[in-house]
Amino acid sequence: MSDVTCDLSVSVDGFVAGPRQSLDDPLGAGGMRLHEWHFDPQGEDRRIVEDWQTGVGAYVMGRNMFGPGRGEWDLDWTGWWGEEPPYGVPVLVLTHHPRESVQVGATTFHFVTDGVEAAVARAREAAGDRNVAVAGGASTVNQCLAAGLVDQLHLHVVPLTLGDGERLFDGVPPLDLEPVQVVSSPGVTHVKYRVRR
Amino acid sequence: MSDVTCDLSVSVDGFVAGPRQSLDDPLGAGGMRLHEWHFDPQGEDRRIVEDWQTGVGAYVMGRNMFGPGRGEWDLDWTGWWGEEPPYGVPVLVLTHHPRESVQVGATTFHFVTDGVEAAVARAREAAGDRNVAVAGGASTVNQCLAAGLVDQLHLHVVPLTLGDGERLFDGVPPLDLEPVQVVSSPGVTHVKYRVRR
Repeated sequence: MSDVTCDLSVSVDGFVAGPRQSLDDPLGAGGMRLHEWHFDPQGEDRRIVEDWQTGVGAYVMGRNMFGPGRGEWDLDWTGWWGEEPPYGVPVLVLTHHPRESVQVGATTFHFVTDGVEAAVARAREAAGDRNVAVAGGASTVNQCLAAGLVDQLHLHVVPLTLGDGERLFDGVPPLDLEPVQVVSSPGVTHVKYRVRR
Repeated sequence: MSDVTCDLSVSVDGFVAGPRQSLDDPLGAGGMRLHEWHFDPQGEDRRIVEDWQTGVGAYVMGRNMFGPGRGEWDLDWTGWWGEEPPYGVPVLVLTHHPRESVQVGATTFHFVTDGVEAAVARAREAAGDRNVAVAGGASTVNQCLAAGLVDQLHLHVVPLTLGDGERLFDGVPPLDLEPVQVVSSPGVTHVKYRVRR
């Protein structure tokens, strides 16, 4: 049985994005600093980034991670990710608004309107014996955690606090975790947890 | 110059105590689970616990960590800590209500009514060239962090989430941290941060 995994860069105070997210600043104030470590990773960080996508057969993401905007779709918009999105496998996008699937480069985005359980089930089907990765954002991850759908939580803890923003674990009932790997570099502490059932 | 340090056991979702704290359950629902790792520590955990009090010349703590109750003092109460409190050096207790110093075993508790900066200053004086440790709880730690008084933050991250409770970093403006040591055991991940100025 494959696993549902979730890799997240997070501040020490538990935010995965900063406050005041906008079209110009989709990660919110300070939020980009959570991701700088994987732009040009060295050493252990590099190995972690290489592992990140290994064995992933499908992704689940929230609509805001596909693109900005609410309500009905602007069908000209095919995502934040440019002409060659970094996925290369099916991506299930959670939305309240139906849309036909869209292929961009080697990645096909499918739109799921019946909730996280359905999205993860469809992703599992697409992934076969590979893992399903929940890509984000916070709301999608928290819904998946609350529904007991996540097997592995990989936190990349960046040594700063944001003070406000989108909070991991918001609304998630208490969980028991098992740390299975801890690796640290000066820029980030990587902790792999298995979620206990 | 000595450092102001702070050692805290914290859940993965950032709580240092659970919800619904009471006289019978001073750590709140689930909060005791954050501390089980240091009751009978082995291996790396043991070394961390031994280090914990080394070089500490004085402590600062909030009133709730000295004892329950609000308002005027019940002078018969000399703290949660029994006849031989585990400090053995001066402890500065933050309170709004003046009280004479109390010696219990080898520990003297002094009561400070003029805020965290004054408490840390008096603790520094008492500690000489040794460190000052901010013992807790969350409110005292957060006030010290917000006032820029903490040099080293040692987080002992216990692999569970509590979902609610007393939150570290609540009301603390964004901080830059530097991880200086990461040590992990199956029961807890220990991360020492230096607070950057």
